[in-house]
Amino acid sequence: MKNLLVAQSGGPSAAINATVAGVVERALISRKIQHIYGAVNGVKGVFAKNFIDLRQALSSPEKLQLLCNTPAAALGSCRLKLKGEDPQQFQELVSIFREFNIGYFVYIGGNDSMDTVAKLSQYIAQNHIDDIFVMGAPKTIDNDLKSTDHCPGYGSAAKYIAATFAELERDCHVYDIPAVTIVEVMGRNAGWLTAASALARLNGGRGPQLIYLCERPFDEEQFICDVKQQLQKSPAVLVAVSEGVKDASGLYLCEKQTHSGVDVFGHKQLSGTAKYLEHLVQREVGCKVRSIELSLMQRCASHIASQTDLQESKMLGVTAADCCLNGDSGKMAIVCRHSNAPYQVSYSSADIQGIANQEKKVPLEWISPEGSDITPELLEYMKPLIQGETYPKFENGVPVHLSLY
Amino acid sequence: MKNLLVAQSGGPSAAINATVAGVVERALISRKIQHIYGAVNGVKGVFAKNFIDLRQALSSPEKLQLLCNTPAAALGSCRLKLKGEDPQQFQELVSIFREFNIGYFVYIGGNDSMDTVAKLSQYIAQNHIDDIFVMGAPKTIDNDLKSTDHCPGYGSAAKYIAATFAELERDCHVYDIPAVTIVEVMGRNAGWLTAASALARLNGGRGPQLIYLCERPFDEEQFICDVKQQLQKSPAVLVAVSEGVKDASGLYLCEKQTHSGVDVFGHKQLSGTAKYLEHLVQREVGCKVRSIELSLMQRCASHIASQTDLQESKMLGVTAADCCLNGDSGKMAIVCRHSNAPYQVSYSSADIQGIANQEKKVPLEWISPEGSDITPELLEYMKPLIQGETYPKFENGVPVHLSLY
Repeated sequence: MKNLLVAQSGGPSAAINATVAGVVERALISRKIQHIYGAVNGVKGVFAKNFIDLRQALSSPEKLQLLCNTPAAALGSCRLKLKGEDPQQFQELVSIFREFNIGYFVYIGGNDSMDTVAKLSQYIAQNHIDDIFVMGAPKTIDNDLKSTDHCPGYGSAAKYIAATFAELERDCHVYDIPAVTIVEVMGRNAGWLTAASALARLNGGRGPQLIYLCERPFDEEQFICDVKQQLQKSPAVLVAVSEGVKDASGLYLCEKQTHSGVDVFGHKQLSGTAKYLEHLVQREVGCKVRSIELSLMQRCASHIASQTDLQESKMLGVTAADCCLNGDSGKMAIVCRHSNAPYQVSYSSADIQGIANQEKKVPLEWISPEGSDITPELLEYMKPLIQGETYPKFENGVPVHLSLY
Repeated sequence: MKNLLVAQSGGPSAAINATVAGVVERALISRKIQHIYGAVNGVKGVFAKNFIDLRQALSSPEKLQLLCNTPAAALGSCRLKLKGEDPQQFQELVSIFREFNIGYFVYIGGNDSMDTVAKLSQYIAQNHIDDIFVMGAPKTIDNDLKSTDHCPGYGSAAKYIAATFAELERDCHVYDIPAVTIVEVMGRNAGWLTAASALARLNGGRGPQLIYLCERPFDEEQFICDVKQQLQKSPAVLVAVSEGVKDASGLYLCEKQTHSGVDVFGHKQLSGTAKYLEHLVQREVGCKVRSIELSLMQRCASHIASQTDLQESKMLGVTAADCCLNGDSGKMAIVCRHSNAPYQVSYSSADIQGIANQEKKVPLEWISPEGSDITPELLEYMKPLIQGETYPKFENGVPVHLSLY
């Protein structure tokens, strides 16, 4: 009998806890596993030997369900990147694994976390350690991990973004005077989340009328033309823009005003991308403009999580634990899509080396030729991922969350 | 047989359409009413004779239910304030009412909209017009209308704010390094919405740890002390602040940096209140800080509307129409609270003169003595208003909304 350790890393999401639940569910039915440990604050918590007994903490089906509906990383997170050239850290990790009789380690996270999985599993292989198995489970609302069709957490963020744009479109529609509303969506290098704003139109909604992803260079003149053209059609224009849009020279829009904006404390005023565009429209169009950032809400709105996303996130946890138990190591659990209608997927694993530190961007052919919208192919890709509602438990009028520490 | 006209005005909310539904439901069962008209874009639409036949547009119970779950003003809105000293506008309105045989007019809105009800009903009374009855129905997420215990739309905004703070608390909790997250909530002169952040703690959540309402002068030094003290207890500190907090001299915090911040276009940088405090914490505390604005999302998030709020909003529409039909005029429908546990209310009406252009602020005794939290009394006042979930209809993974024009 060995023990299993699970930990979470990187930015939180509405679905990352469902993956923990999946790992625990698979471990619970295994005869190879005695203790199921959760490390607090990712690999930092492994170094600190800060472990929670998850068999005890998640002793009932109700608690496991509550965990799935709890946003952010219930085990805490960290942003610690291990140094590949320094074997001492890996020796230390292995020695802690030995101390706690840990034979299986599942690390849930994004690109950086998969780097940890890659380096640790490489060290283990190179040192011919044959009783420790390390698996990655994907997580990122950015949807930018390679090898997997899509990433757990993305579907729930996309559903929040779609619903919010649908509601904002209704809100912006009420006045009959020209007004532009610019909404900034997360995504520094990949526009998947911004693209999800198009899902707001699935039930007949008119907005957003303009969508700009960070994969294409942003042309300010063309943007102003686009806005003026839309204002001819409707007084209320709703715009979705990736936080990471850059101009043709590769400069982020949000960095373009730093040379002049200094606040009373002498700090550079790094306004957001939407704020920059708000000022641009004010100057060039002159109508009412408002900028909005969806900020952290888009990654933690578990009250409107996608049922498909939560279910897949859990299955990826099950898969990662299952791979470990069957002797796999140095891989990440992945989801493969077989068809859109009906939506069919299967679960598998892929070598971690092709995933760590890589980014999967929106293919340029999925952006409309004029650069201000997405194509039907991208819509079809996203649509299945936001299907189904989760109806989390409310008490006192507020969603109930599980706290593990 | 006369016709009834209903219109919406002021800022949208997640509940204002339920009030239209209530007006229509009451009108549908009346034998005094032939046509039920909705004016598009408030009183502007009355002047433009831009009417929708609501008997036709809302011909099924399904459509009425969909209307209740649709955010923002389905009939559109306006910000037109009538001039009291100019009888011509009122003559014109009455002449349009005559042209369309309108005997009953219900205007749904906030302080400014009630000013329209006050002036129009006064003109009608002074000119001894005895066949036109004008009623107001309250609406404002700000909860700042007098005479009524609370305002339709507030409960749903409060529920969104409570759920969002609960989720943000989970999100901020994941890292173990000191970090302050400052969330700006709507409310220029009344702190009711900011107070709703405290509801996030109802199920055991730890945040927000600090809450600042605009009713109390904001002391920057005290704020920094408060933040430092909270950081001693926990690395993640979540702060709720009203957009309208002012310093002791009466200056809005968000106006304090205008003298230095000028963007590349030469515009004054009117950053928000939270952004101002972000820079203050950066300078005085030096830890990681983030500012968030809940922006329009807090007023249009109908996907998480309060069932209590929607039901009461509808009942206030029923009440306003009922008052009209029974010969009342120059009044606003109100809700009276009889007890908190069990929560019991009744519906009535109050003279519009004590309501128009007035503001109801949070009583100072409902703010904790140290000024950084609310009292249990205020929590008890708010709690019943966010109870119950509405589970609106989803199609294609996105909420379905009704479009009337």
